[in-house]
Amino acid sequence: MPELLTVTDVSAGACCTPLVREPLSAEEAEQLAVTMKALADPARLRLLSIVAASENTEACVCDLIEPVGLSQPTVSHHLKILTAAGFLTRSKRGTWAYYALVPGALDRVSKLLVAS
Amino acid sequence: MPELLTVTDVSAGACCTPLVREPLSAEEAEQLAVTMKALADPARLRLLSIVAASENTEACVCDLIEPVGLSQPTVSHHLKILTAAGFLTRSKRGTWAYYALVPGALDRVSKLLVAS
Repeated sequence: MPELLTVTDVSAGACCTPLVREPLSAEEAEQLAVTMKALADPARLRLLSIVAASENTEACVCDLIEPVGLSQPTVSHHLKILTAAGFLTRSKRGTWAYYALVPGALDRVSKLLVAS
Repeated sequence: MPELLTVTDVSAGACCTPLVREPLSAEEAEQLAVTMKALADPARLRLLSIVAASENTEACVCDLIEPVGLSQPTVSHHLKILTAAGFLTRSKRGTWAYYALVPGALDRVSKLLVAS
């Protein structure tokens, strides 16, 4: 049935712009939006930035409280969100927790925005 | 006054992790959070993804409505937010508006997360 196939193609492909690769599915977009929400906060961006600027891209939680000017529970809350979103990993050594950057955690978004 | 300087350094530098570069300032983080909020929405991520996957990373608004399953005013609203955040540029040709990807719009975030 070539006519039917042609009709289907036109309705799916719309009027003008051909796609050169597969866009995000609805499910992928939902997941990625959750990840982006973790970044859409000034305190979390500063915390992530301090970790990224630290030697070996790792920082003790004790070094993160003063620069952002928030209480330790608030800082811990933000760090938990960043860890759950896959931007940081947490390890405990002695008294303190250390947070390390996960390299390439933003790759999914970068790839989305870079022309292939 | 070397004593005073030493005390200042210790209080600013905290206990353990030296910084190897300058982290985001509070103002930079505020601005970047606004940009990230534009991305933290499934419909906007899908729209951006379809533009990025289109030939020449440009798409007619007429091609963006059906794939995301939203009304034209809603799609236009999301496209306006993405344009204001610097991810898309808009140009009108004939009846339709075309949206083109701004390459490197996510560079600020990528640089933040990539170890230098």
